[in-house]
Amino acid sequence: MPSVLNPQRTIRELEELRALTGDADGAQRVAFTPTWLTARRWFRERLAGLPVEIHEDAAGNLWTTLPGATDRAVVIGSHIDSVPNGGWLDGCLGLLAGVEVLRRMAAEHDGRPPVTVRVVDWADEEGARFGKSLFGSAACSGNLDLDEARRLVDKQGIRLPDALCAVGIDFERVKESGRERATAAAYLELHIEQGPVLLDLGLPLGAVLGTFGVERHAVTFHGQAAHSGSTPMNRRRDAFLAAAMMAQEIYAIAARSDGGVCTIGSCTTKPGIVTSVVEECRITLDQRHLDAGALARMHAEAREAAARFAAEGGVDVAWERLWHIKPAPFHPRLIAFADEAVRETCGTSHRLPSGPLHDAAEMAMAGVPTAMLFVQSLGGISHNKIEDTRRDHLEMAVAALDRLAEKTMRWVASHSGSR
Amino acid sequence: MPSVLNPQRTIRELEELRALTGDADGAQRVAFTPTWLTARRWFRERLAGLPVEIHEDAAGNLWTTLPGATDRAVVIGSHIDSVPNGGWLDGCLGLLAGVEVLRRMAAEHDGRPPVTVRVVDWADEEGARFGKSLFGSAACSGNLDLDEARRLVDKQGIRLPDALCAVGIDFERVKESGRERATAAAYLELHIEQGPVLLDLGLPLGAVLGTFGVERHAVTFHGQAAHSGSTPMNRRRDAFLAAAMMAQEIYAIAARSDGGVCTIGSCTTKPGIVTSVVEECRITLDQRHLDAGALARMHAEAREAAARFAAEGGVDVAWERLWHIKPAPFHPRLIAFADEAVRETCGTSHRLPSGPLHDAAEMAMAGVPTAMLFVQSLGGISHNKIEDTRRDHLEMAVAALDRLAEKTMRWVASHSGSR
Repeated sequence: MPSVLNPQRTIRELEELRALTGDADGAQRVAFTPTWLTARRWFRERLAGLPVEIHEDAAGNLWTTLPGATDRAVVIGSHIDSVPNGGWLDGCLGLLAGVEVLRRMAAEHDGRPPVTVRVVDWADEEGARFGKSLFGSAACSGNLDLDEARRLVDKQGIRLPDALCAVGIDFERVKESGRERATAAAYLELHIEQGPVLLDLGLPLGAVLGTFGVERHAVTFHGQAAHSGSTPMNRRRDAFLAAAMMAQEIYAIAARSDGGVCTIGSCTTKPGIVTSVVEECRITLDQRHLDAGALARMHAEAREAAARFAAEGGVDVAWERLWHIKPAPFHPRLIAFADEAVRETCGTSHRLPSGPLHDAAEMAMAGVPTAMLFVQSLGGISHNKIEDTRRDHLEMAVAALDRLAEKTMRWVASHSGSR
Repeated sequence: MPSVLNPQRTIRELEELRALTGDADGAQRVAFTPTWLTARRWFRERLAGLPVEIHEDAAGNLWTTLPGATDRAVVIGSHIDSVPNGGWLDGCLGLLAGVEVLRRMAAEHDGRPPVTVRVVDWADEEGARFGKSLFGSAACSGNLDLDEARRLVDKQGIRLPDALCAVGIDFERVKESGRERATAAAYLELHIEQGPVLLDLGLPLGAVLGTFGVERHAVTFHGQAAHSGSTPMNRRRDAFLAAAMMAQEIYAIAARSDGGVCTIGSCTTKPGIVTSVVEECRITLDQRHLDAGALARMHAEAREAAARFAAEGGVDVAWERLWHIKPAPFHPRLIAFADEAVRETCGTSHRLPSGPLHDAAEMAMAGVPTAMLFVQSLGGISHNKIEDTRRDHLEMAVAALDRLAEKTMRWVASHSGSR
């Protein structure tokens, strides 16, 4: 069954999947739903005729294995699940590109490459239903907090363990997925950028340095409600004023951080009426950086600024950590391979961090040498039906992933996959 | 029936009214409710034995008239209605102090003072039920917008005209109240300050310069939602940033205005999630000043600043006027009388504007020479059961109102009440 890499086939398959599992509002492959199961059945049909072994692990991750001369494996991963009303590329591009690489390798190495090559479709990357992303990859990496996940409930009141049971997954055993990781010598992932950096640079592809660490907090300023007409300006303890001072400050903090980002995404006010000075103002602050030390500095600076603005305004401030995750820097050698693969494919490469999380972060944090490729996203828009990427860029993305996989395979074969 | 001014009686009456119409949560004399009717019945009983004529006008305002040598009248007004869970002084202090002045005048002038003296209990000053304050005085002044008021509905879905009908008031005729104004040569009102100015100055009483004009707007900034992790800081069109810049700016605008106040009381964000740059941010802006020109300048400066912040941040801005009212400056001669009355009562006076509106504003805008006295409010707190004023300050307030009424009466008598 000889085959050469055929990126146009990947695009055709993406279009076929869109027609099968999308509607006028976009992709509808929310994990563990009937549409997701339909997508997976269709995906398995794409693998027919390849010399591969296919199985689902304890967490519902779907592994397709092309056995090589050694068990040590180059794993290419992504996810077929989507957010509701999602884009046509997010997740499935990386998965179907991985299959195309697998086809090429099976053909070129007479069905037996020097190292094992695996494609994994992670279960519930998006976390759209239960609000917990990277479910399958976190089960595999061991980072999944079972006690936390056990309590998750969707909008219909269905518990995550029950939803998993309905698709044949035993929640209490999901971490047995970790055994799949034992042979993983490298992990590769292709994804659309979900941001405007490559678009702004006019570049089709980039090599990802790692995923940002995140500090996510609610910051509540507490002052004093007072009548908007009868309270002199110098007598006010205005919680909104103190909170609002943070808006500009976080831009300065991000600028000093060399590559970090800070976002105030929400602001609520109490009593929140036109005739009263704001007594309580709550903002959310999301800070991200690729470097753990820089992230810690950014966070410390935000706390210092909030305390200063609170003191200046005679209000109190309280912090509540909503979530956090460490940065997951990728493997230097594999980043270099990714850079080379991009340059060989389209002439110019660019290294950039990933703001959004990806399953690759779980693999990197679990100690698997990891790299990612980003392909340009038109408009920088994702998680939306208007998500799109130029056809020639999609073809280059498949070609670059193939080059990266080949380089990585040779590296694993020659270095025993050591980190 | 000889009598000298007895401010302690006023305090006793206030306490009696509190016991009759309040509960553990405060005063409950919401206009047009059974408790309000109870308060009015009790009030009429207080007038028994005085040589006065009492009637309710077409808008439900209750007029108590001590006829003088001329029809031209000094009117002392306030309101017995309260907000739900209100304070024990707001409104009824001014009304019962007015009655005490009436008693003193009736005694001193053998029941026939040189000019007529009237005490009016305005109906529904607070507007707590239908969201429209100064109902009775606006009907009397002629400023009431009947088409607007006709559509008002309370939380139970009851229309204002039907609520009025239930207490014997024909909505379509409320403006006939205006005939009461024909003989009004001056209007006086005593009220608690509802702010901290006199408290901060350590003064019991102040002479009010007028009520602030108000410009009340919603300001909506519209940017672009974008992922908090993948969107570089310099690519953001952050609606919250632009809105937040207004927070500090309004303090500068108020400082430049010489006496005005500006308040952002509410801030809402869309999509308002921790992982997205804010696409839409709506704030409310309330601006008040005693001088119409200064108020217009404050508002123009706010618009200029919002446009500037919007342009700097690459976002759009739109304004929606929620409400406005012109300043109601009081009468210079009567303000001087008020100042004198306060100085004679407690040694030191202070002139200050009123941030909140009062029925006095309607009289002033209708062309009736008007003045007000403020008495210190402990904590600057009002519209709350903890509202309070020192007993000696209450006594001084009654005495100062009496002095102001006497001076005003002499002025009306000698100047034919001309403006």
